[in-house]
Amino acid sequence: MRIAILQTRPVFGEVARNLSRIERLCPEQTDLIVLPELCTTGYQFRNGRELRSLAEPSGGPTVEFFTRLARQHRCAFAFGFAERAGWRIFNSAALVGPRGLVGLYRKVHLFDRERDLFAPGDLGFRVFPLGRWRVGLMICFDWIFPEAARTLALAGAQLIAHPANLVLPWCQQAMVTRALENRVFCATANRVGGERRLPGRGLRFTGGSRIISPRGEVLAEGSKNKEQILLAAIRPALARDKRVTRKNDLFADRRPELYRIRQPGARWQRLTRS
Amino acid sequence: MRIAILQTRPVFGEVARNLSRIERLCPEQTDLIVLPELCTTGYQFRNGRELRSLAEPSGGPTVEFFTRLARQHRCAFAFGFAERAGWRIFNSAALVGPRGLVGLYRKVHLFDRERDLFAPGDLGFRVFPLGRWRVGLMICFDWIFPEAARTLALAGAQLIAHPANLVLPWCQQAMVTRALENRVFCATANRVGGERRLPGRGLRFTGGSRIISPRGEVLAEGSKNKEQILLAAIRPALARDKRVTRKNDLFADRRPELYRIRQPGARWQRLTRS
Repeated sequence: MRIAILQTRPVFGEVARNLSRIERLCPEQTDLIVLPELCTTGYQFRNGRELRSLAEPSGGPTVEFFTRLARQHRCAFAFGFAERAGWRIFNSAALVGPRGLVGLYRKVHLFDRERDLFAPGDLGFRVFPLGRWRVGLMICFDWIFPEAARTLALAGAQLIAHPANLVLPWCQQAMVTRALENRVFCATANRVGGERRLPGRGLRFTGGSRIISPRGEVLAEGSKNKEQILLAAIRPALARDKRVTRKNDLFADRRPELYRIRQPGARWQRLTRS
Repeated sequence: MRIAILQTRPVFGEVARNLSRIERLCPEQTDLIVLPELCTTGYQFRNGRELRSLAEPSGGPTVEFFTRLARQHRCAFAFGFAERAGWRIFNSAALVGPRGLVGLYRKVHLFDRERDLFAPGDLGFRVFPLGRWRVGLMICFDWIFPEAARTLALAGAQLIAHPANLVLPWCQQAMVTRALENRVFCATANRVGGERRLPGRGLRFTGGSRIISPRGEVLAEGSKNKEQILLAAIRPALARDKRVTRKNDLFADRRPELYRIRQPGARWQRLTRS
């Protein structure tokens, strides 16, 4: 599989312009192209009304645009967009192929002000087929919760497509750990540039998009501030093999019966709820 | 709290010599001193018989030795040792204070040949009081299972003492992720030097012991091949605070109901068993 990341610099609110830029940057002969979180609208919405005016249903023109592009380039796209679903707006990611929407993910762990704007994701962490591959989706801040990538990997993801708008400096390196501990490929597509649409709250996005192998190798890495196309050829077999030594298989070696929590002064709980 | 790591170079089988070296290296005026995995015996046992001859019960002379040293220095020790418990031998870590054994951990995730020698840990991940602190123990290869540090942190650990005998290159950096994702202090005490006690199976241990803050700062770092004493002063309050923004608390933000696994073609499962 040939995978690409487009590390873009969206212009806030200029959806048509951002889509047209994506179209111009699109590399040929790739199987999957991963784009940043909210790559069509920009990130720093002033309020819910502004967000609503830029959000679209998952069957809207942006998904149609990517479907057309997918057909034209014979590839698939994973990208972040603001999804309108009735009264609720989600910070979503879509997996789109030549025949349209393949998978939808709604960001589970909302970061900072996103909590005032978006509804928390309600679909969980799901894995979608893409030819012989199984692709999991997560978005930006999900990286800091090990359960996100873990749930995707245990559900069979061989590649985690990870659209992001990172402002903190830790994720890029942490994704090496996520790839290693789950023996999956990870593609973090971060944006570059800045936004200053709220007084005193300028944001600078940290670039450094990465494609990482299940062995923790950084196969491609973006700059901190330039638009870029990153490419890598990857083999799914590597992500199906969870062995790290002849005697250790990272998934078979898990001991869920011991991952129970005894909180101070409380009874036994579980890491997950029923 | 003043915490120290002794990054040592144990000599295989020379328990008295290794203990005496530890005694000489012991720094003054620390509250907790963390030592490597199997720091009294060395690592590469030729067979089960050799291991048994070097293993001790948790009430044995090694724990007595550290109790005496703890009384003398008014501190506590976290260290790895081969524990004999009836017919079984565990790769264990003990937390020992001036009044003796405070906590015992038996390595849950055994690495490579350890599986032929040791019984898998049966006590789970537990947290022990040390003055105002709560200390969790895990050993070496446990690092690659995010559930290990997660279970300890959710159980209230503010500091994870992590004796290690690392031969792979990834753990030191991954521990930054473990500290960040759980907002806890991590002290990985690795050993240096090598062992070549089995034909064609030489081992080189990678040093680089680290004390890391809940904000991912490396407070102290050891060399790759020298015996060293690392020191840091740390505040428990920082590890009790799980906030990363004004609106995000990493523990409150967890959504265990969404960390369920849907394996390909299977019914819903859970990350943990009942």
